[in-house]
Amino acid sequence: MNHIITDNNWQIEDGAEKDVVLGSRLRLARNLEDFHFPYQASLTEKNKIIDELFNSLGFLDEENYYFLKMNDLSDLEKQVLREKNLISIDHAKNTDGRALLINNELNLSIMINEEDHLRIQSFGAGLEFSKIWHRADQIDDLIESKVSYSFSDKWGYLTTCPTNVGTALRASAMCHLPGLVITGKMYDILGAAGKFGLSVRGVYGEGSGSVGELFQISNQITLGYSEEEIIDNLESIIYQIIEEERKSRKFLLENDYNKIKDIVMRSLGILKYAHNIEEKEALKYLSRVKLGQTLGLFSEELDNNFFGDLLFKIRKAHLQIDKFTEKDKIDIKRAKTIQKKLLYKE
Amino acid sequence: MNHIITDNNWQIEDGAEKDVVLGSRLRLARNLEDFHFPYQASLTEKNKIIDELFNSLGFLDEENYYFLKMNDLSDLEKQVLREKNLISIDHAKNTDGRALLINNELNLSIMINEEDHLRIQSFGAGLEFSKIWHRADQIDDLIESKVSYSFSDKWGYLTTCPTNVGTALRASAMCHLPGLVITGKMYDILGAAGKFGLSVRGVYGEGSGSVGELFQISNQITLGYSEEEIIDNLESIIYQIIEEERKSRKFLLENDYNKIKDIVMRSLGILKYAHNIEEKEALKYLSRVKLGQTLGLFSEELDNNFFGDLLFKIRKAHLQIDKFTEKDKIDIKRAKTIQKKLLYKE
Repeated sequence: MNHIITDNNWQIEDGAEKDVVLGSRLRLARNLEDFHFPYQASLTEKNKIIDELFNSLGFLDEENYYFLKMNDLSDLEKQVLREKNLISIDHAKNTDGRALLINNELNLSIMINEEDHLRIQSFGAGLEFSKIWHRADQIDDLIESKVSYSFSDKWGYLTTCPTNVGTALRASAMCHLPGLVITGKMYDILGAAGKFGLSVRGVYGEGSGSVGELFQISNQITLGYSEEEIIDNLESIIYQIIEEERKSRKFLLENDYNKIKDIVMRSLGILKYAHNIEEKEALKYLSRVKLGQTLGLFSEELDNNFFGDLLFKIRKAHLQIDKFTEKDKIDIKRAKTIQKKLLYKE
Repeated sequence: MNHIITDNNWQIEDGAEKDVVLGSRLRLARNLEDFHFPYQASLTEKNKIIDELFNSLGFLDEENYYFLKMNDLSDLEKQVLREKNLISIDHAKNTDGRALLINNELNLSIMINEEDHLRIQSFGAGLEFSKIWHRADQIDDLIESKVSYSFSDKWGYLTTCPTNVGTALRASAMCHLPGLVITGKMYDILGAAGKFGLSVRGVYGEGSGSVGELFQISNQITLGYSEEEIIDNLESIIYQIIEEERKSRKFLLENDYNKIKDIVMRSLGILKYAHNIEEKEALKYLSRVKLGQTLGLFSEELDNNFFGDLLFKIRKAHLQIDKFTEKDKIDIKRAKTIQKKLLYKE
């Protein structure tokens, strides 16, 4: 199991608009017709659902897919899956009667008996909604050809939480917006998001702040539009945000060159030399170094996808999964992991 | 003139206890018998004093000494001399009827018509009081063989300010005490200094703080002891402070290795990568890097005397003297100066 989850996959791939959009993510919620929703189902019923799905999905090539019962996983393995967003916090915590299907490339996962019977998730680098939608749609169709989904002609796919009813689709892009944050324009974006049916939230921020100038932008509406319409709408607004971000970066370069160059260079210096570093601090400096890279402020060549890769690799469980690490050594290992990545261009 | 003052001399030499003591300094105050003290002397009288001294000291080999009238110097030249402590702030500011004698190695200077007719100063790297005392004493004897000093059998050398009467000698050592500062023991030293007749003050600190953990430790008493006794007493206490500093550093290394290594490495990273840096900030980080060097925390080899050298070279006038530099470019030039020095081991 370990070898599947320690490395990053889509995170180090190239993708559209990757100077701003690190990754895209999409999920579909589905439920089986003949069973209670998970929160009402007994453990026996949940296990029956797992069996039914395992048998129905037996056609999936076993070499490319892993079917895992959550109770069989160690805490650290669950934590790594969580850090990669392959499972939710809840799925890592409450493991009885729950399972997970993931593919080899780690760009597709299906949580079984989370809030809904199936939570199909698809991932990709850059702004690649059509690609990841196609992948999720394909496996959704495959599953639907084997089992009966709970579906209403009036409401569409039925889900545990009514906010998901309809397409039961939520798409999101992880956007790196240092230009908008530094110029203060991010407040305008946040203020306008609701009007466009979008949710914008800091990726690592609890409450107000965001760490690493990373924001998850996703659709709020799942009902009344087709999947394609929802994705197109979200994508077109994200393209506008991308343009605003690029303009802000250009503005900073032209109007505040010395300040920006200093911020960026110091961040690179700290990351290259720190002996130990906490996660949030690392994210802050990585974000700045990434900004410097997109602005062409370095003579040093850094791997194009260093930020997307390290975003995951510097997290607690990722740092510990390959080898037991004492608690007070994790920050040291994080610093070393970053330094190794910044030294070598892949 | 420029070529004499742009480079550092004694600052990059080795000296005793240089892991703690960056440099030693000593001055003698002398006045000529037949003239008013400078604050009472007219401009005509002051110029007469300069002429008298220039003629008396004509025997000094001209190739090795420079005799400069303060009014002939540019503001920037005076500022550089000030930054090197070759002249006082007052001597740079009020230049009428004032002159300066300096030797080629810049380890001897004589201010003429500052607070006293002569202020003989001698400098050296490390804790080298006997060496610099010998140099000052020698030129003092030479001068005394040519002119008549104002001297009282009861009081010793007479000076403008009564606190200097007697030997008119003040010796000081510039000590780098990061271990004592970080462990909090510096407060004990400061508290006890007065009892031993010492003055301890932050080198760049105005008021309470010190920048770069640098302290000037000097004698307060000039009367009632011989020059040798004053120097011996000061030196023996400084040796105790050196021992305390070394113990504190060892303590930090043994008890707080990860924290100290992180502080030191980040400081090195910031100095190596910053695009622009202010003087006080540079001193802070240079101090930490110096600590790291003495603790053997680097794999990189740095010039042994980088700190003593940069202490002067990063100052405003030093950065501008060789080439006109716009005000907003000084911090950039400072960063580059540091980076050049840290890259090359001389």
